[in-house]
Amino acid sequence: MTNLNEMGQKAQKAEFQLSQLGTLDKNAALRKMADDLEKNAATILNANEKDLKAAQESDMSKAMQDRLLLDADRIKGMADGLRSIADQEDPIGKVDRGWTTEDNLDIIQQRVPLGVIGIIFEARPNVTVDAAGLCFKSGNAAFLRGGKEAINSNIALSDTLRASLKESGLDENAVQLLHDTSHETAQSMMELSDYLDVLIPRGSGKFIKMVVNKAKVPIIETGAGNCHIYVDESADQDKALKIIINAKVQRPSVCNAAEKVLVNENIAEEFLPKLAEELKKNKVEIRGDEKTKSILPDVIPATEEDWYTEYNDYIIGIKVVTGLDEAIEHINKYNTKHSESIITENYASARKFQKQIDAAVVYVNASTRFTDGGKFGFGAEIGISTQKLHARGPMGAHELTTTKYLVNGSGQIRE
Amino acid sequence: MTNLNEMGQKAQKAEFQLSQLGTLDKNAALRKMADDLEKNAATILNANEKDLKAAQESDMSKAMQDRLLLDADRIKGMADGLRSIADQEDPIGKVDRGWTTEDNLDIIQQRVPLGVIGIIFEARPNVTVDAAGLCFKSGNAAFLRGGKEAINSNIALSDTLRASLKESGLDENAVQLLHDTSHETAQSMMELSDYLDVLIPRGSGKFIKMVVNKAKVPIIETGAGNCHIYVDESADQDKALKIIINAKVQRPSVCNAAEKVLVNENIAEEFLPKLAEELKKNKVEIRGDEKTKSILPDVIPATEEDWYTEYNDYIIGIKVVTGLDEAIEHINKYNTKHSESIITENYASARKFQKQIDAAVVYVNASTRFTDGGKFGFGAEIGISTQKLHARGPMGAHELTTTKYLVNGSGQIRE
Repeated sequence: MTNLNEMGQKAQKAEFQLSQLGTLDKNAALRKMADDLEKNAATILNANEKDLKAAQESDMSKAMQDRLLLDADRIKGMADGLRSIADQEDPIGKVDRGWTTEDNLDIIQQRVPLGVIGIIFEARPNVTVDAAGLCFKSGNAAFLRGGKEAINSNIALSDTLRASLKESGLDENAVQLLHDTSHETAQSMMELSDYLDVLIPRGSGKFIKMVVNKAKVPIIETGAGNCHIYVDESADQDKALKIIINAKVQRPSVCNAAEKVLVNENIAEEFLPKLAEELKKNKVEIRGDEKTKSILPDVIPATEEDWYTEYNDYIIGIKVVTGLDEAIEHINKYNTKHSESIITENYASARKFQKQIDAAVVYVNASTRFTDGGKFGFGAEIGISTQKLHARGPMGAHELTTTKYLVNGSGQIRE
Repeated sequence: MTNLNEMGQKAQKAEFQLSQLGTLDKNAALRKMADDLEKNAATILNANEKDLKAAQESDMSKAMQDRLLLDADRIKGMADGLRSIADQEDPIGKVDRGWTTEDNLDIIQQRVPLGVIGIIFEARPNVTVDAAGLCFKSGNAAFLRGGKEAINSNIALSDTLRASLKESGLDENAVQLLHDTSHETAQSMMELSDYLDVLIPRGSGKFIKMVVNKAKVPIIETGAGNCHIYVDESADQDKALKIIINAKVQRPSVCNAAEKVLVNENIAEEFLPKLAEELKKNKVEIRGDEKTKSILPDVIPATEEDWYTEYNDYIIGIKVVTGLDEAIEHINKYNTKHSESIITENYASARKFQKQIDAAVVYVNASTRFTDGGKFGFGAEIGISTQKLHARGPMGAHELTTTKYLVNGSGQIRE
């Protein structure tokens, strides 16, 4: 079995060096990693072919095979991702706040790296590069464990990044990949609290839940999104239609896609037929509550379970509500605290919705699809946190940091 | 068995009301709670007497009995604690940052409550009041579980606070105490992730480790402090003596007391005899490395285990180091990432120590005893976090909050 403690020690050693590195040196190393990925494309594609062949032999679904696939374009995409991380602001060294205490001590709260970040993910090899890049920029060592389906690709990618680090004169152990993809080793990694400061699982909701249940290391939970759009009585209905269709069908498989629409009863008879027509054009199946069904007789009745479900598919749940209060109550009960939107032209409704909805991101008159590190301007993201501890919403390099208090005195002792 | 899910639902309901409450209303309720504690002193002391009697019968140590004891002064202390929490700034509603995205969306990142906070603690009844007060001020429902040794005191205290909330026209379930102190129920509470947003254990290091290992709810780890003071070659030795004695003996049982002193070899022969004399006056036992023993022949030899140990007692470990680099390496290896201090008059040494030491608080020329919510100016604290996730160092009301992104648009959809 892989010696995880040894990997952990190497990671901590590399992390110490990395935590002291200046921004220009980090950015130069990231740009070299990007170049080296492109130079090494043949080797990487060769390794990826082995994974694809094994995937075909094991009858992996086409969708999964597509996630696994690398080609020249996708390698360029990963390299450009690293370059855009290099272009981002360095979060390390930033001062959150500072003050002088009554004892005349000067306190500064400064951003420092988290330390060693474990990332445990399923079959997408691009996570190896994205995660390594974001961790590196924020001064953290990356301790990676990808799915066995992508192991050859992941080894080729991490070997390329490690060689690149070495050629930059840096400790290659700033990026380490577990080559052993057994479940036993994954379980041991989830318990490696002496070395890992945080563990971020990336993958399906089921996978993330499994990691959350088994881990002893502090976790940041990402991903689940049962997102709602509430159409207020005062909504601009054209805006509402465009936003709902965008949030549902622009990319239905992702966590910030809308899964439910709540409609104010005073506009339901006017609005729902228009919405049904647009959804039909886009091949979206509707599951409605009783009131919706009384207006749209063809819809499938929604069950209690539907209100909890993240479909990630061309399906949407619709409920007619008596007003804003019922909408807020319904959303706070059934949502996954990811992204929620109100469509309204009324100031008081907008304010109340934003104050009372408990979610990472609460929109007025915009599509939930904007909950994304890129769209927020973070350049890249390591995931979207749906927990409240440490980070909430899209997580960029800033969210991979913690703080340290620097306290400067002149001989103070406590009375 | 207590129905924890029902308590969880009540907590969430109370939390919703509390999250929407204005600062003046919260402060008025806190001041009323303080007054009601003092008014209800007889009932509280009566309940405490039952706990003390049981403690005497079970041969509890005198130190533990002292922690359990309440008297008029201590009740006034708890009440004044609530009043000082009322005087503090309200963290809710503060904006951390805001910007306009390339899609012309306005994003505001605003402070909101964490939600329902579980506190699991040992025998100190004052935690019931401190924790309830800090959670309340930061808009969080408190879900408390204290040790069985203090159950009568805790019930009297929480009943007083709950009655006070009710009289203020608020939901009394903003503060709930588990009356059932069985281990089974405690275990179920640690797994109550549907209702608890975070769990903070308070107590001995052993107790905290146990909770960290068993919990499924996100944890904030507090408390362990193996704190070091490094005396640099350029130190003002009088300052160094005063700071070391203060950090060691002003209150040896607490986590921010100094446990180890590292001394630069170039000043060891001059400094160590002076330090030994001061420590002897204060009845502190010295455990030294070989070089220390060569200068102070009477000291007990330190073992490898000593370097890891938090004594919380009149014992100190002393090691002579070749210089700053060895001091930093030693501290980063053995410390618990709590509080570390360098005594120096040299700018470069001070800067390097603060940049390279990995700890919540890194001091120059001050006692480690200042790592404390009160001394930091937070008014009160719920504990001192020694983990890196979410909060690091003293945790006041601000650290019991998370953020929500408010995104305002005008019909934006994602291309």
